[in-house]
Amino acid sequence: MSGFFISIEGTDGSGKTTQIEMLEHYFKDRGFYVVCTREPGGNRISEKIREIIIDKENVGMTAVTEALLYAAARAQHVYSDIKPVLNDGGIVISDRFLDSSLVYQGYARGLGVKTIKDINKYAVADVEPDLTFFLRLTPADSLARKKNQKELDRMESEGEKFHRLVYDGYMRLCKINKERIKVIDASKSADKIHSEIVACIEKLLKEKGI
Amino acid sequence: MSGFFISIEGTDGSGKTTQIEMLEHYFKDRGFYVVCTREPGGNRISEKIREIIIDKENVGMTAVTEALLYAAARAQHVYSDIKPVLNDGGIVISDRFLDSSLVYQGYARGLGVKTIKDINKYAVADVEPDLTFFLRLTPADSLARKKNQKELDRMESEGEKFHRLVYDGYMRLCKINKERIKVIDASKSADKIHSEIVACIEKLLKEKGI
Repeated sequence: MSGFFISIEGTDGSGKTTQIEMLEHYFKDRGFYVVCTREPGGNRISEKIREIIIDKENVGMTAVTEALLYAAARAQHVYSDIKPVLNDGGIVISDRFLDSSLVYQGYARGLGVKTIKDINKYAVADVEPDLTFFLRLTPADSLARKKNQKELDRMESEGEKFHRLVYDGYMRLCKINKERIKVIDASKSADKIHSEIVACIEKLLKEKGI
Repeated sequence: MSGFFISIEGTDGSGKTTQIEMLEHYFKDRGFYVVCTREPGGNRISEKIREIIIDKENVGMTAVTEALLYAAARAQHVYSDIKPVLNDGGIVISDRFLDSSLVYQGYARGLGVKTIKDINKYAVADVEPDLTFFLRLTPADSLARKKNQKELDRMESEGEKFHRLVYDGYMRLCKINKERIKVIDASKSADKIHSEIVACIEKLLKEKGI
């Protein structure tokens, strides 16, 4: 695969969507073939799986079921959306990838990192982001931003304790993957965050000779 | 767990539904607490997953996605429907269980038995049927019966080659699990099949002192 795969991670309200849009324009302006996508989702089947995951009516979903549903959506996402673009030499920017499962189901739900890696082994099919940006927002800031949202889905409406665990999980994951995951202070302005992300990308693309 | 878990396996049109109904009456008449269920399904979440799996619009679903969706539905099924009944000392009769995934995704889709076992490890949570009946119908007979069906779903509408592989997969699985899986000739009358199933069950319950 000759393309370049960027994933954006972060808690709810950390500004992932805005940054992905800005990054898409950045690449398009420079003539790159870029595709923006999201997890869970990206195609008809994975979006249907997403509906089950976030539906607030689905009370009592076990952590294992949740982890397997994310993995199922990911398997289709990798196959239908990510691999074809990377094989074509394009750039994929995904709102969340495997790191989210490691953090949300592995750390926060308590299934453990090994279980999540086992479950996702066949889903990711050796695809790994070349570069990941974690938009770091403290649980308190995340909560404050969420208050402006009208309706929260099944995952978003989890309690404060859960979102504290998610934050801690991300911090642990960032420590383990210092090389790949860049931590960005998400409390700054969108333009400032974008500049930092672009600086990282330009450095790496230069190193890779792209 | 003090209950008893029976799974019924077989190709399309092998008469599983009829046999499960007859078996339910058999146990109820004898005062047993019995619950009949099915895979994928059995509860709200798993039935929603079932809809995605069988929807003919979901063309291009990868074998890994399919296997993970079955596992997700199974995880919820085991947790919400099977374990509580077994823990209460009841009898569970399930239309399909893990064997179906081993056969349909493992053998017929070619993912292999190891992959399916890996994917389902956390879903089954050590729950295994005490007894399984494979209602054996040759692919030709299965096809003939299917012709009477109005509309076939995504799985049922797979070609002859796939259903030949499913049949071969079941035969291999039966050889490996001679003790647990009882092969029943499904070309016989419903009453005759029921008698054979009951004979097996009575022998086992006697051995177990139930």
